Amino acid sequence: MSELKTWLKSQQEIVDRALDSLLPSEDTRPTTIHQAMRYSMFAGGKRLRPVLCLAAAEACSGNIEAALFPASAVEVMHTYSLVHDDLPCMDDDDLRRGRPTAHVVYGEGIAVLAGDALLTEAFTIVAQTPTTKRYNARDYVLELSQTGGSKKLIGGQVLDLEGEGKNLNQEQLVHIHEAKTAALLCSSLRLGGMSANCSAEQLQALTDFGYNLGLAFQVIDDILDVTQTTEQLGKTAGKDESVDKSTYPAILGLEEAKAEAVRLTQLALDALKPLGEQATRLEQIARYMLEREY
Amino acid sequence: MSELKTWLKSQQEIVDRALDSLLPSEDTRPTTIHQAMRYSMFAGGKRLRPVLCLAAAEACSGNIEAALFPASAVEVMHTYSLVHDDLPCMDDDDLRRGRPTAHVVYGEGIAVLAGDALLTEAFTIVAQTPTTKRYNARDYVLELSQTGGSKKLIGGQVLDLEGEGKNLNQEQLVHIHEAKTAALLCSSLRLGGMSANCSAEQLQALTDFGYNLGLAFQVIDDILDVTQTTEQLGKTAGKDESVDKSTYPAILGLEEAKAEAVRLTQLALDALKPLGEQATRLEQIARYMLEREY
Repeated sequence: MSELKTWLKSQQEIVDRALDSLLPSEDTRPTTIHQAMRYSMFAGGKRLRPVLCLAAAEACSGNIEAALFPASAVEVMHTYSLVHDDLPCMDDDDLRRGRPTAHVVYGEGIAVLAGDALLTEAFTIVAQTPTTKRYNARDYVLELSQTGGSKKLIGGQVLDLEGEGKNLNQEQLVHIHEAKTAALLCSSLRLGGMSANCSAEQLQALTDFGYNLGLAFQVIDDILDVTQTTEQLGKTAGKDESVDKSTYPAILGLEEAKAEAVRLTQLALDALKPLGEQATRLEQIARYMLEREY
Repeated sequence: MSELKTWLKSQQEIVDRALDSLLPSEDTRPTTIHQAMRYSMFAGGKRLRPVLCLAAAEACSGNIEAALFPASAVEVMHTYSLVHDDLPCMDDDDLRRGRPTAHVVYGEGIAVLAGDALLTEAFTIVAQTPTTKRYNARDYVLELSQTGGSKKLIGGQVLDLEGEGKNLNQEQLVHIHEAKTAALLCSSLRLGGMSANCSAEQLQALTDFGYNLGLAFQVIDDILDVTQTTEQLGKTAGKDESVDKSTYPAILGLEEAKAEAVRLTQLALDALKPLGEQATRLEQIARYMLEREY
């Protein structure tokens, strides 16, 4: 597992360098907004989505230079969603990755605008992904915009807000997780594959892998919220229970929730078969996520 | 002028139909977000930016079907920026186009998300603009994302917020207006031209026209804020003075501000020359804006 950790760290550094070169510098005017954007972008994130994007490109014999555009774009989109979700009028979180959230540091107005700017920047970046034989800017942009839109990422946050204080059943919970988490993980993998000119069969394998991995990821997230401390999480622990949110451990119990994470991870691994040996990294990442840390 | 009014009305209806067909319906789940998006989109706006986009396409011998994608996209982006600018943590406005603003009706959380969803949707729409010989989705998306980004539209709002209560000089004011207003008006025209496969010379003419028209538009907006009532405006009148905002009438006096609007409109008209007779509509719109109403 230590070889994987070294590889993950190297990929994170590559992604951080790409993000640094793609985003406006802190002294670009107006400086406030660019400082706020970078404050949230460079907060020690694990870069899971970009790493999956790069690994998907590798699994389809692509090159990293091309995949760094979508890899950066999905992370920028993910970060915008965190900045807005943390706002007082939404989840009202003061802590993220062990630091005060953007609105605490820069005020609510600038936090809204920094989120807006990151969302916009995600499209500037993804549109620059090189055209391949099968895919072009239209495909890349629509992949990201539909995943980020009102039926997926944003719709999931709406359902999440509306679900607070209600007893959701497992089906409703899966629906929220699909929209809020699995969709963007899935698109990270798909965009990596597309930048590598993947075939329709490869794209389907990445989609199925991403969908199940995304659901597994959210189940694990729910479990960690119960079992870990605020210090370990870098964000407020026990938050779900305190806002009376339906979660896997709450609905199924802790042991059943853990079994569900294992089952979903196995489904994800099964989906990789059409990709053959080239999917080794993706397989390793999926197994590693189950035991995280990550 | 009555022929122009009839034409403007017909274009507005065409744009409204396009927006209606491009945006998710109100009963799409989650329904709250789609209702909030449509509440702000269909609030009786004059559709200035789309109309300019369609007229620019016409001036370059383009067809309206192709131009309806960018025309809709710029209006969706404009609407998102209004929804977020009206938030309590920004300009804190309760009234827009004669109706309560989105956050008054749906709450702040949903208003933030509806703005996010509209911004995302703008890219879904603009990416569908048909490819021409000279331009493709990459060009359309980058045009919109750079105009909407932290150096232009969003940057202008940051400068606007930071400028409240300060005495700005004319140069600083022009800089805010360029970023906050002229840039998106300019891109509306450019995207219309691009969808019509315009030449580099035509694109430059549209750019110069849009830049000066955008500045003229903002000067007129500042004047109307002083001279019109809340009922006439459909939004809170006298707002600029009440938040101690620097405006053209405040810096130059009312008469000088009016003269500046005339001067900028003339610069816009001069820029149209390379487009010849086909630019008659654009010319009419510019003259009409100076005497608005619009």
